[in-house]
Amino acid sequence: MDSQFTINAQENSKGLFDCPGYKFSATAVDIRDNQSGQLDIALIVGNTPLKSAAVFTQNDVTAAPVDLCKAVLKGNPEKIGGIVINSGNANACTGNNGMADAQEMSASAQVTTNIGLPFYVCSTGRIGRRLPIDKISAGIDTCAKALKHCPTQALQASQAILTSDTCEKLATVTIQYQNKTFTLAGMAKGAGMIEPNMATMLAFIVTDLDGSHTSLQKCLSQANAQTFNCISIDGDMSTNDTVILLANGESGASIDEDPILAQAFQEALTLISEILAKKIVSDGEKITKVVTLEIKGCSSFEDAEKVARAIGNSLLVKTSFYGSDPNWGRVVDAAGYARVGLKLDQLNLHYNEVPALLSGIPQEHHTDDWKAITQKKSFTITLDLNQGDQSFKLITTDLSEAYVDFNKSE
Amino acid sequence: MDSQFTINAQENSKGLFDCPGYKFSATAVDIRDNQSGQLDIALIVGNTPLKSAAVFTQNDVTAAPVDLCKAVLKGNPEKIGGIVINSGNANACTGNNGMADAQEMSASAQVTTNIGLPFYVCSTGRIGRRLPIDKISAGIDTCAKALKHCPTQALQASQAILTSDTCEKLATVTIQYQNKTFTLAGMAKGAGMIEPNMATMLAFIVTDLDGSHTSLQKCLSQANAQTFNCISIDGDMSTNDTVILLANGESGASIDEDPILAQAFQEALTLISEILAKKIVSDGEKITKVVTLEIKGCSSFEDAEKVARAIGNSLLVKTSFYGSDPNWGRVVDAAGYARVGLKLDQLNLHYNEVPALLSGIPQEHHTDDWKAITQKKSFTITLDLNQGDQSFKLITTDLSEAYVDFNKSE
Repeated sequence: MDSQFTINAQENSKGLFDCPGYKFSATAVDIRDNQSGQLDIALIVGNTPLKSAAVFTQNDVTAAPVDLCKAVLKGNPEKIGGIVINSGNANACTGNNGMADAQEMSASAQVTTNIGLPFYVCSTGRIGRRLPIDKISAGIDTCAKALKHCPTQALQASQAILTSDTCEKLATVTIQYQNKTFTLAGMAKGAGMIEPNMATMLAFIVTDLDGSHTSLQKCLSQANAQTFNCISIDGDMSTNDTVILLANGESGASIDEDPILAQAFQEALTLISEILAKKIVSDGEKITKVVTLEIKGCSSFEDAEKVARAIGNSLLVKTSFYGSDPNWGRVVDAAGYARVGLKLDQLNLHYNEVPALLSGIPQEHHTDDWKAITQKKSFTITLDLNQGDQSFKLITTDLSEAYVDFNKSE
Repeated sequence: MDSQFTINAQENSKGLFDCPGYKFSATAVDIRDNQSGQLDIALIVGNTPLKSAAVFTQNDVTAAPVDLCKAVLKGNPEKIGGIVINSGNANACTGNNGMADAQEMSASAQVTTNIGLPFYVCSTGRIGRRLPIDKISAGIDTCAKALKHCPTQALQASQAILTSDTCEKLATVTIQYQNKTFTLAGMAKGAGMIEPNMATMLAFIVTDLDGSHTSLQKCLSQANAQTFNCISIDGDMSTNDTVILLANGESGASIDEDPILAQAFQEALTLISEILAKKIVSDGEKITKVVTLEIKGCSSFEDAEKVARAIGNSLLVKTSFYGSDPNWGRVVDAAGYARVGLKLDQLNLHYNEVPALLSGIPQEHHTDDWKAITQKKSFTITLDLNQGDQSFKLITTDLSEAYVDFNKSE
């Protein structure tokens, strides 16, 4: 038998629809109370009990649905009914009422679908206000009924989870292995702050492979560290960030029974996560540039990450990106206040392939090249500290006047 | 004898001019190469050798003049000629040439003034370009000559150090003690990013008291921790930040010989530093609000500082200040990602005296009061974590569209 595998990203992903063995529906119940007709509830269920893994925001302040999801994960993460999601209200900073409301969403999903297994619950939108739980419960009931006659509303589900995103974010990755095809399909919503509050990132990935919770969790954590955890739009970490992975085993193959398939799954999961993460950054609120920061030559991974985040979150750096200004001075200044002990005279800095600093010395004869590169919608800055062999890659954005205007008030 | 002292801030400070025993001059040599006539070189000298103390940026990347000042401080900080300052070019990221240029500035000051003692050198402005050292040396010569016939150009000196500041920043504090008056006088430039690069903060304080370098350094470090180190406009730490304290002993009294006078000096130094720090924040680039963050009830000072800086540097928080939006959700979210282990249900948050959260529960009946307060040009947010008795105060600003526009390019 052929022990090689190939992994392919599908060009025209239909999102979750592409993966066998799941059902989806969505509806609009006016959670925003603005009669826009915007879809705001989504339901994902499996044809059979689902195995799962999840990762969450590391903020000290977590929204009620995050707390509930953590409890579900600690329960039996190998027997899950599905996921119920609402947009328009994050159910964060809502105290005991918030937890009661999240539990009611889970219960509504269990009862109305007649699945009777725990559901993950995710919310995104305004914080500090109670959910309109009656509307939401009615909406979940509508979604459950829709699953029976029209269970293929994956596109609608991907729209129902959006807040300030300008488009739905879909991805499909297939594994070809031993003449079989295995599928990973996903949808995400982006780090835009809608209404007053959230930079929430939500992503949901389903697969027709099987795998224990432990295996799935390990793969998800690793993929997350290299993808969703390496994007930054405004440096604000939300109370609701959640990534959930579901596995239904519909394909008949398990990552626990074949190390090569497990490796293929890890690569495919990292790829689909990267695609979704890039879609999130590219649709960041009022951004005009996507900039990849490659920080190399560090003594430790932690140092590399500190430097990358100091640069990626610097207002002065981000405004210079916006202005297409090849302002390596601001980049170096921000790297310096990460305080990892860098030495200016050891720094190499490149815009794409063009040197700006070599051993700390400006290469000013390349000024025109720097300017041409920073005018592109997407470019890479590589900073080599020449202190070791550790690196970190962060995908970040510029900061525009429109961002300030957009976020200045509710 | 009366062992009480009183400390007064002068309403109409003339800056350094108010302190006996110093001379000042300034000139314009077109360092910016724009023929604006803007003053760009300042010289401060003592009538006698000066004792000194200084604190600097903690950025890994330090400008050549900072490195030179550190060397001066390690030499004989009790025998200093004075300070020479230029604006328009920060002499940062300029390699060995930069250090040679800084040394030439110091040497020019020593020779042209005929003082023959080490000078501190400070530069602020654009980074990554060599100083026009010939212009600057000529300017220092002009300043040295001016000291002889017109040694009172303290106002001009305070203007020559400015970059994007909209006004000079002066302060004078007097100590009344045992029927004598002792003076501390200062000038500063603010955290505005001029031309492409710097958020440099420079402050210079002179006194007619005497004191050993050790005593002066201890007092300056303590005052700095409570004042200049507690302001934030955009979270970007400059390569050039410097505060220098000079003491000439002209009053005949020393802080080393009288503990009460030493205490009075510490209080006066903290007060003048606070006045200058507040002037810097209030003149922050394109700001419309000054917000004081009082973080209380923390397990440690470090935790309190982390929470304060997470809030004060959050783009979402700063844009909400700009929009006069009482968005406590963003404040709590930012506090949460400082990751000091706060508990939402223990948080009290107030706008001025008005509660927004008590034990984590929103006090929504006060919404109109919150809105009225956040519309003011200046207000206080108090966040009590109820986990201990440590606190930290940070004075910060909003983030405006004009800031982005101002900083988007050279």
